[in-house]
Amino acid sequence: MQGLEILGLISAGSAILTATLAARSVLRRPTGSGRMVEVGEAIKDGARAFLRRQYTTVGIFVLLASLLFLVSPNFGPKASLAYLCGSLSSMAAGYFGMQIAIRANTRTAHSALSGLDEALKVAFRAGLVMGMLVVGLGMLAVLGITLGFDWLHDPSRLLPLSFGASSVALFGRVGGGIYTKTADVGADLVGKIEKGIPEDDPRNPAVIADNVGDNVGDVAGMGSDLYESYVEQIVATMIVGAMLGDVKYVLFPIGIAAAGIFSSIVASFMVRVRRGKDPSYVLNSASFASMAFTAISVFLLVRLLFGSEVALLVSIVLGLISGLAIGLASDYFTNRLHKPAQYVARSASSGAAINILSGFSVGLFSLFVPVLVISASVVASYAINSAASYGTADSLIRGIYGICLAGMGMLSVTGMVVSADAYGPVADNAGGIIEQCGEERARETTDALDSVGNTMKAISKGFAIGSAALTAIALFASYSQVAHLKVIDLLKPEVVAGAMIGAAVISLFCALVILAVSRNAFRMVEEVRRQFREIPGLMEGKAKPDYGRCVDIATTGALRELIVPTLLVILSPILVGVSLGSAALGGMQLGAILLGLVFALLMANAGAAWDNAKKFIELGNLGGKGTPTHQAAVVGDTVGDPFKDAAGPSLNIAIKLMSVVALLMALGGVV
Amino acid sequence: MQGLEILGLISAGSAILTATLAARSVLRRPTGSGRMVEVGEAIKDGARAFLRRQYTTVGIFVLLASLLFLVSPNFGPKASLAYLCGSLSSMAAGYFGMQIAIRANTRTAHSALSGLDEALKVAFRAGLVMGMLVVGLGMLAVLGITLGFDWLHDPSRLLPLSFGASSVALFGRVGGGIYTKTADVGADLVGKIEKGIPEDDPRNPAVIADNVGDNVGDVAGMGSDLYESYVEQIVATMIVGAMLGDVKYVLFPIGIAAAGIFSSIVASFMVRVRRGKDPSYVLNSASFASMAFTAISVFLLVRLLFGSEVALLVSIVLGLISGLAIGLASDYFTNRLHKPAQYVARSASSGAAINILSGFSVGLFSLFVPVLVISASVVASYAINSAASYGTADSLIRGIYGICLAGMGMLSVTGMVVSADAYGPVADNAGGIIEQCGEERARETTDALDSVGNTMKAISKGFAIGSAALTAIALFASYSQVAHLKVIDLLKPEVVAGAMIGAAVISLFCALVILAVSRNAFRMVEEVRRQFREIPGLMEGKAKPDYGRCVDIATTGALRELIVPTLLVILSPILVGVSLGSAALGGMQLGAILLGLVFALLMANAGAAWDNAKKFIELGNLGGKGTPTHQAAVVGDTVGDPFKDAAGPSLNIAIKLMSVVALLMALGGVV
Repeated sequence: MQGLEILGLISAGSAILTATLAARSVLRRPTGSGRMVEVGEAIKDGARAFLRRQYTTVGIFVLLASLLFLVSPNFGPKASLAYLCGSLSSMAAGYFGMQIAIRANTRTAHSALSGLDEALKVAFRAGLVMGMLVVGLGMLAVLGITLGFDWLHDPSRLLPLSFGASSVALFGRVGGGIYTKTADVGADLVGKIEKGIPEDDPRNPAVIADNVGDNVGDVAGMGSDLYESYVEQIVATMIVGAMLGDVKYVLFPIGIAAAGIFSSIVASFMVRVRRGKDPSYVLNSASFASMAFTAISVFLLVRLLFGSEVALLVSIVLGLISGLAIGLASDYFTNRLHKPAQYVARSASSGAAINILSGFSVGLFSLFVPVLVISASVVASYAINSAASYGTADSLIRGIYGICLAGMGMLSVTGMVVSADAYGPVADNAGGIIEQCGEERARETTDALDSVGNTMKAISKGFAIGSAALTAIALFASYSQVAHLKVIDLLKPEVVAGAMIGAAVISLFCALVILAVSRNAFRMVEEVRRQFREIPGLMEGKAKPDYGRCVDIATTGALRELIVPTLLVILSPILVGVSLGSAALGGMQLGAILLGLVFALLMANAGAAWDNAKKFIELGNLGGKGTPTHQAAVVGDTVGDPFKDAAGPSLNIAIKLMSVVALLMALGGVV
Repeated sequence: MQGLEILGLISAGSAILTATLAARSVLRRPTGSGRMVEVGEAIKDGARAFLRRQYTTVGIFVLLASLLFLVSPNFGPKASLAYLCGSLSSMAAGYFGMQIAIRANTRTAHSALSGLDEALKVAFRAGLVMGMLVVGLGMLAVLGITLGFDWLHDPSRLLPLSFGASSVALFGRVGGGIYTKTADVGADLVGKIEKGIPEDDPRNPAVIADNVGDNVGDVAGMGSDLYESYVEQIVATMIVGAMLGDVKYVLFPIGIAAAGIFSSIVASFMVRVRRGKDPSYVLNSASFASMAFTAISVFLLVRLLFGSEVALLVSIVLGLISGLAIGLASDYFTNRLHKPAQYVARSASSGAAINILSGFSVGLFSLFVPVLVISASVVASYAINSAASYGTADSLIRGIYGICLAGMGMLSVTGMVVSADAYGPVADNAGGIIEQCGEERARETTDALDSVGNTMKAISKGFAIGSAALTAIALFASYSQVAHLKVIDLLKPEVVAGAMIGAAVISLFCALVILAVSRNAFRMVEEVRRQFREIPGLMEGKAKPDYGRCVDIATTGALRELIVPTLLVILSPILVGVSLGSAALGGMQLGAILLGLVFALLMANAGAAWDNAKKFIELGNLGGKGTPTHQAAVVGDTVGDPFKDAAGPSLNIAIKLMSVVALLMALGGVV
């Protein structure tokens, strides 16, 4: 099996090399000049200051947790090291990815002056840095610790590494989400609605904070998030694989991930605008290509390793197709080219309330197909694999391994998905910079750039949510094995109670995050209003606003508010496990997965539907900008902001983190 | 055990007698004069027309279903008759209760001219008619069929009766909910927000439809809803009781219900305004008294029937206390006297979006304690009863019986809860009539009347939601027994898939109901705007609007939209059961219960928080009426309307109906 280990290391190296080359290519571009550099510097300073302070807070947690691992009799120094490796590499992926993004924004803006093709290339390569760092560092961390500590036969010892990645990701997602939405909502509410000035107008005191938010939330936060999914899924699959009695099942996920990395690198070369082609088409076809390449190389891998064992292949492909199906369903419900988002836009003509209601119901509608798809792939992967005869373990473990492989299939293309996703905020930032510099001629290019990402964003969210559900189910199944639970019986009242508490904890978590955004945005609104009121000449563009105060409000608020929701997710499984026992803790995980899945899809898609309904109107439909219909649509968009970019994506991490905590408890003999 | 049967029949008779006396007392009051009668007649016509058309639609369904029972080899004519009895008595309770409500509104309005005490009495007695009809007819139907067909030893044959009550209730709640919110939202959006005219202004074309809505939704719909909970809970407890091997456990729930009926009747005499006392205090203390009386009489009943068997008593009292705790928690989060609703009000000063976000997060917060309370009473009731030694069956059945008793405890005071709840729309209608007649001097009285119900409304919603969850869990447990499932194992993928599908179906159901309201309200808004545009002199009060068109839009829309969500709830368990088997169907019920409970609490409490935040502002706080802050709060209130009065309460029925369908399938041998 040494082949797979080497393959994994080569793929990690290639990913990091690709990231380095892409970073160099971005940094070689001209930074623009004058005002552009000035705005860029302000964004850079804000983003770095936030990340520094956030990592200080997180650092304290990481230090305490690593000490806990160190002194715990069930874990010890190796576990502590694995934990540190997981958390620090997650922070590194977020940090370096963001460093490039905050340098790529002015460069993209400058390139936009000379045309779409160049700008797209710069923005995509900046995204590629993040994408490749996530998969490269993830692979390196898992493989490095596994081989270094010789844990190939006992991969459950990797769980502290997973926990490190998860906890950092949750801090990052929650903190970044609160930051970015505080700034976004604050900027829009006063700027767009009360003052009637355009998005990204330099007179708006919150505009720099808003641009910073794109970077700390949608780049750094998102990067840690998908890093976590990736590592978690590989580790979960390795743990179940070890129960099958042959080390090749442990290494197989490494092989799948490597296939995905190589496929993503090859596909990334396809991103260039060909004359007459829609740039959306370019990004989509590169993503589809990466999936097709992955499917083909996994096919070869299965043939090589397992011969005619097709059950494994079917699960992986099922996972890929499910991810795509969930993404396309989300796209249908949220893209402004389709009926639902247009319906939401039309309903805005009856006022903000009806707009909110229709967006909310579109969100509820949209989750039906994805949930069915996930259910179907769980049942089908389990059935096909438990019926197949590979491995030496019983059919239950084989079935669970099948579910894990479906998750692996979904996550194998993470490199490409993250690249396409991180592209969005870079393009968004570039648009903001262009607006603030008054470079009207390039605004059209950056608008085109910005709109490119929509379908891709929906698809990557589909992958993130779908894989979170599958990973969480896989972790839940591993938990039952580690905790020696033969059944988790819903007829036991403590299991039902556990499920209810899990659902309630997820709801409380959402409440805390949304409340944090609305409370913080409230402060931001007050500050922006104050500046317009007290700084003479601001509205006329004769005076400069105090951007720093707004950046500070967003930073301080986000750091204060991220602690409680994160601790809730980490501590509540411990409480339930200790007080109600291991079966109740199993029920709790299921309750959390159910609610988390429903809320994540609801919030992502309702948010996107409101957003795109607003954009549909801004393109001149239904009266266009400045009408009451547009105002109503802006309200919907604002409500959707913390849904889709703060609470929603944090849920993906929360449900997995709860399962990881449960697994660690089982491993540590607490339940 | 004949004593209990006779006690049950006497209690049913007393309830129906009390209803008749209360109805006569209401009808003896003067109807008022001139304009008041005219408005009253318009409301009456609209309400009767809607109920007639709704019952025609429902009648077709009832006819088809009764034929199905008749020809099905597993059921036959007795089942068909039981089904008809369940559905027709539910319709009767809704019909007669509403007949009194639509006569009590003008009488309350007229009494308001001479003071608060009289008006409160009339409105409460109208509510009492509904409350007593619900418990009287419910008891009569269950006991009549049980004794008539001699099913005391096989109460599971009563399930068609439950199904009848459930399906009619779901049609009534969904149809009534869509109707009332279409009209309410339509009236508010154009009248209050666009035209700036007050609530219930006669110039508003949707005002009559709005008043009709209170009756068909909050009286008739609510009545069928609680009728269903009541019957369902008694039947579920009887079914589990039969498994304990002694007929006294089958009759015990009848005894508890009888104790509750007598207690409610006695407590109802306490409702009169004493000088210097807040009328809210009057209603609350009557409700608390009914709970205390019930607890005492159940204590005596247990002593008499079971001697020292305290486990049974503990469960019942636990249920009562839990219901109260859930209600008080809801009250804390939604009452305008407490911080959360005031926070929502304050956040409206940053605009509609922040108001929506804070109300939504208050809703999410508010469900934590109730869910913990329900979990705790499930675990505690089960533990105490399974450890006790009564009955001949195993401890599992005793534990389940304990959970059923907690539900019985909560529902024993249904008579009082419904009375206090049905009081609300009567008072609301009276206020509307006063406003339309321009009787400014009595407006203060009706406003005071209207505000009385708030805490009580929160408490009765707490009882409705809490008991729905407990009943659904009891039904789920009975299902496992009838379907011969020894375990429902969460480690089986089809159980997880079932749970996910259950969650998705509940989400889809909510989506359909909310979409129905927003779509229908959209039509209503268009019509109201058209009338203001096209009828000259309307705004100046010189011309009369066409109320009939608005009533028609609400009616037609509600009837068209109620079918799909109702069929979804009935057919989806059949599909899952047939395709994935009985264990998956069990999982589906749990998924539906989890999501249903979370959504029901979220929607009820977020809706109430927005509503009360708006009222808080309208009392002159934060600038009062007509300010942008008030406008923002109105948006929140409008979003909350379909949440709290259409989708939210329908969920209580939906989750139970799904379990009843599952039980019928198990009973019919389909799964």
